[in-house]
Amino acid sequence: MKECKLATGEPKLVVESLGVVIGGGRPVVIAGPCSVEDPEMIRRVASFLAEEVRDELGVRNLILRGGAWKPRTHPYSFQGHGLKALEWLKQAGEEVGIPVATEVMDPRDVEQAAELADFLWVGARNMQNTPLLRELGRSGKPVLLKRHFGAKIGEWLCAAEYILAEGNERVALIERGTRGFNEYARFSLDLTVIPVIKKVSRLPLVVDVSHPAGERSLVPPLAYGSLAAGADGIMIEIHPNPDKALSDAKQQLPLEDFKVLASGLKEAGLL
Amino acid sequence: MKECKLATGEPKLVVESLGVVIGGGRPVVIAGPCSVEDPEMIRRVASFLAEEVRDELGVRNLILRGGAWKPRTHPYSFQGHGLKALEWLKQAGEEVGIPVATEVMDPRDVEQAAELADFLWVGARNMQNTPLLRELGRSGKPVLLKRHFGAKIGEWLCAAEYILAEGNERVALIERGTRGFNEYARFSLDLTVIPVIKKVSRLPLVVDVSHPAGERSLVPPLAYGSLAAGADGIMIEIHPNPDKALSDAKQQLPLEDFKVLASGLKEAGLL
Amino acid sequence: MKECKLATGEPKLVVESLGVVIGGGRPVVIAGPCSVEDPEMIRRVASFLAEEVRDELGVRNLILRGGAWKPRTHPYSFQGHGLKALEWLKQAGEEVGIPVATEVMDPRDVEQAAELADFLWVGARNMQNTPLLRELGRSGKPVLLKRHFGAKIGEWLCAAEYILAEGNERVALIERGTRGFNEYARFSLDLTVIPVIKKVSRLPLVVDVSHPAGERSLVPPLAYGSLAAGADGIMIEIHPNPDKALSDAKQQLPLEDFKVLASGLKEAGLL
Amino acid sequence: MKECKLATGEPKLVVESLGVVIGGGRPVVIAGPCSVEDPEMIRRVASFLAEEVRDELGVRNLILRGGAWKPRTHPYSFQGHGLKALEWLKQAGEEVGIPVATEVMDPRDVEQAAELADFLWVGARNMQNTPLLRELGRSGKPVLLKRHFGAKIGEWLCAAEYILAEGNERVALIERGTRGFNEYARFSLDLTVIPVIKKVSRLPLVVDVSHPAGERSLVPPLAYGSLAAGADGIMIEIHPNPDKALSDAKQQLPLEDFKVLASGLKEAGLL
Repeated sequence: MKECKLATGEPKLVVESLGVVIGGGRPVVIAGPCSVEDPEMIRRVASFLAEEVRDELGVRNLILRGGAWKPRTHPYSFQGHGLKALEWLKQAGEEVGIPVATEVMDPRDVEQAAELADFLWVGARNMQNTPLLRELGRSGKPVLLKRHFGAKIGEWLCAAEYILAEGNERVALIERGTRGFNEYARFSLDLTVIPVIKKVSRLPLVVDVSHPAGERSLVPPLAYGSLAAGADGIMIEIHPNPDKALSDAKQQLPLEDFKVLASGLKEAGLL
Repeated sequence: MKECKLATGEPKLVVESLGVVIGGGRPVVIAGPCSVEDPEMIRRVASFLAEEVRDELGVRNLILRGGAWKPRTHPYSFQGHGLKALEWLKQAGEEVGIPVATEVMDPRDVEQAAELADFLWVGARNMQNTPLLRELGRSGKPVLLKRHFGAKIGEWLCAAEYILAEGNERVALIERGTRGFNEYARFSLDLTVIPVIKKVSRLPLVVDVSHPAGERSLVPPLAYGSLAAGADGIMIEIHPNPDKALSDAKQQLPLEDFKVLASGLKEAGLL
Repeated sequence: MKECKLATGEPKLVVESLGVVIGGGRPVVIAGPCSVEDPEMIRRVASFLAEEVRDELGVRNLILRGGAWKPRTHPYSFQGHGLKALEWLKQAGEEVGIPVATEVMDPRDVEQAAELADFLWVGARNMQNTPLLRELGRSGKPVLLKRHFGAKIGEWLCAAEYILAEGNERVALIERGTRGFNEYARFSLDLTVIPVIKKVSRLPLVVDVSHPAGERSLVPPLAYGSLAAGADGIMIEIHPNPDKALSDAKQQLPLEDFKVLASGLKEAGLL
Repeated sequence: MKECKLATGEPKLVVESLGVVIGGGRPVVIAGPCSVEDPEMIRRVASFLAEEVRDELGVRNLILRGGAWKPRTHPYSFQGHGLKALEWLKQAGEEVGIPVATEVMDPRDVEQAAELADFLWVGARNMQNTPLLRELGRSGKPVLLKRHFGAKIGEWLCAAEYILAEGNERVALIERGTRGFNEYARFSLDLTVIPVIKKVSRLPLVVDVSHPAGERSLVPPLAYGSLAAGADGIMIEIHPNPDKALSDAKQQLPLEDFKVLASGLKEAGLL
């Protein structure tokens, strides 16, 4: 790993933007729908997060996530509303004062995405899409890099190095599960990754607790476990009406269930 | 899974023996050395557990583990002291009033092991050693069944069914990690397994936090994460002088480190 | 791997018994039903092998396989007819002059099994059942050791070392597939294992082409590929009436299909 | 898989360009260096292929491969000479009348690459880079799609569907190995994939025998095995002086070794 020296060793990096801090001690919560389906639904999620999670529960280190460009396995599945969705997302976030994050897949979209979103993430399938990584490095925006479900730790850190090597030090990692042997979950969520990243990498680590679960009822225990093991935050899919969601319907939490979870995590001292 | 109906569905089973309860709400701690190396070291561990963990910290749901017959990858590695070690273990436990657990590998050893140990466990490599499983079923003793590092959940539950089918309902599961993609840990520890087992199986689930780690510094986060995610307990290797241990030297915690961990877990409300 | 020095390096070992040679240049064919279901069916397979494969096609390096004790995932599945089945197998083999092979799972069965069968094999699930391995080492009989579906090469070779260390040098390896990502097959069959074993191990290597397939139509290409890549033989499940088989119904080849395959392999210079 | 109906079922597709046919019965050989390092070395490989493989051995279904843009794990490794290298490759191919293939990673490079190369391939890491796949679909050029080392078959076929859905039916698949348990090889090469793709997909399948090997001596057995199992061709890295190669030094075959291999495959009736 010595070749990827910006991503490894010391000193630890902290990713900060608009008052949100990833890696600074207080865990971050990145919550929102899988896809930004229309302006109303994302505004609904944003005001829920602002009023019921931030103001009521006091969870302040908060980012609103929403997919604009969706990387789908099937070409005929809903692919996201693109730039339009990103504008809805940005507006919803601004109205309530919560920064927003979206996924970019195409290097040609980075410039526009960087203007509208506060945080950009790279999906698992594009972890080693190096033209995209370089473009994100040049964008100067905070970047969240998901681990591919078949990637080793070293491959992941060296993918991050592509971003760092362009001079962009605002990079955090997202673990979202890997292929495993548990036929009752969508992916395996390897807990050893948390202390290992803390030990070998300079980058903060967020855990996406929705994708490994693949199903609503499995999500809360993954959130408790990840935060208790030392993750710098969680990413979680929530939706006003999950059963009607255009993507990932089975794994998105209803808003009220997320509120129960956030409140429980708060009480347990994990948020 | 319908074919393995004793291991799945409802009602949930609780494994109880000598005042220790696995699956009853309060997490169990199964701690001790990888191998029972001599009478003094196991007595040292036993008195440490009794005085400093049980009496001082108030961790009462406690089992003393110690390997007598060791399943080693290499035939020329230390294979354990066998029956003699089990006698030392039993005596050490009795002296302080803590029940003891040991691994059995050979169906011909079950009868003797059942007389001396309070809990018997099956190691990962013997998860589908069906003559051994049947013999343990007939023994009537509480059995802890580790998941093989390449096994699916269904295969594991059906292995448990071999024991249950003999009329022995005192069976708990131990997750000890599976083959994965994290080259910095010994095994992957798939957190999704915890809510999945809670959902589909009747059996309590303990997490062995030492084997996935493979290295001391990774162990505590795995303990916090597993318990916070809802595991019914942890199994953990501790040793008075880990660097001199005859097996698993790198992953055993020194006694004082374990005390710090147990105390932290207690404070966090996880024990 | 230096610790497992009998299984690695040079000189290469050859396993010979009753005129059959594994590792001597001419590939071996180990064919027969998953289970010995009754005396008639095994006699039917034996005479088919003798008349149509050995005498007609000239495939002489031939072993008749048949399961007596079956390691089943589910405890309520057919578990084999045990010792009785082994007697039927032995008699069927003797009548036509073909040596026989069966699986042993229980160390307590080794002595009897060694009296009746010419070759004994260890199933994948028992690859690291060390009491069994030692017992087989002491038996002096030729042993075929299957790789566990989650095991590394080093673990496999060191399991073989347990047998070799007892003074029994008649040990061959069987690759039978590992857990992988191909959802249309039962297991993955990693072709790299063939040249790797040839390079690092002293032991001959046979490929079980039925278990990775899991389905009849996939079996023949695996046989061609394995032999062309340099395997010392194939193990293959065949049955007079596969759809009625008591186990592995979907992957056993009808006798006539096997004859077509054997004849094709012969023509291609692979047998 | 019904959602990816262009990639599955019947009728089978054949990929043809400049006299080369993939999937037409005669296996294709895609050979050349990992990277086009300079004009001389690629011209040396091209003339070797033309004179010693095509003309002398009669292997006519031949493509010259060479990397221009290299997807490297480490950002500081040699990344290929880009467009310039592609021009060298094209010229080298034209001089001897052998079509050329190169990898594209960036959707912004597709137009230029499509003008210069006869076949374009997508590397494993970009298998689900959907903007790239769509761009390649629109290019109209023959596309070879490598399977990601962590991807299931269905994910691979649906990635191909992205190309097909743009109206481009000249798509072939390349299996290049997946993560496995063989610690002596770079990747596992799952032989079951060959008959499975033949059964479920309309697309021809080529096997990259260099990447799973990771080491020269393992390559030839993988070539024999893949072709004998029914692959529609092999992709293989060859180099005039492998030990001096700027990338993949250990797995590239010297030209003379490749000639021995090609000649052997020809004699065995596999080419």
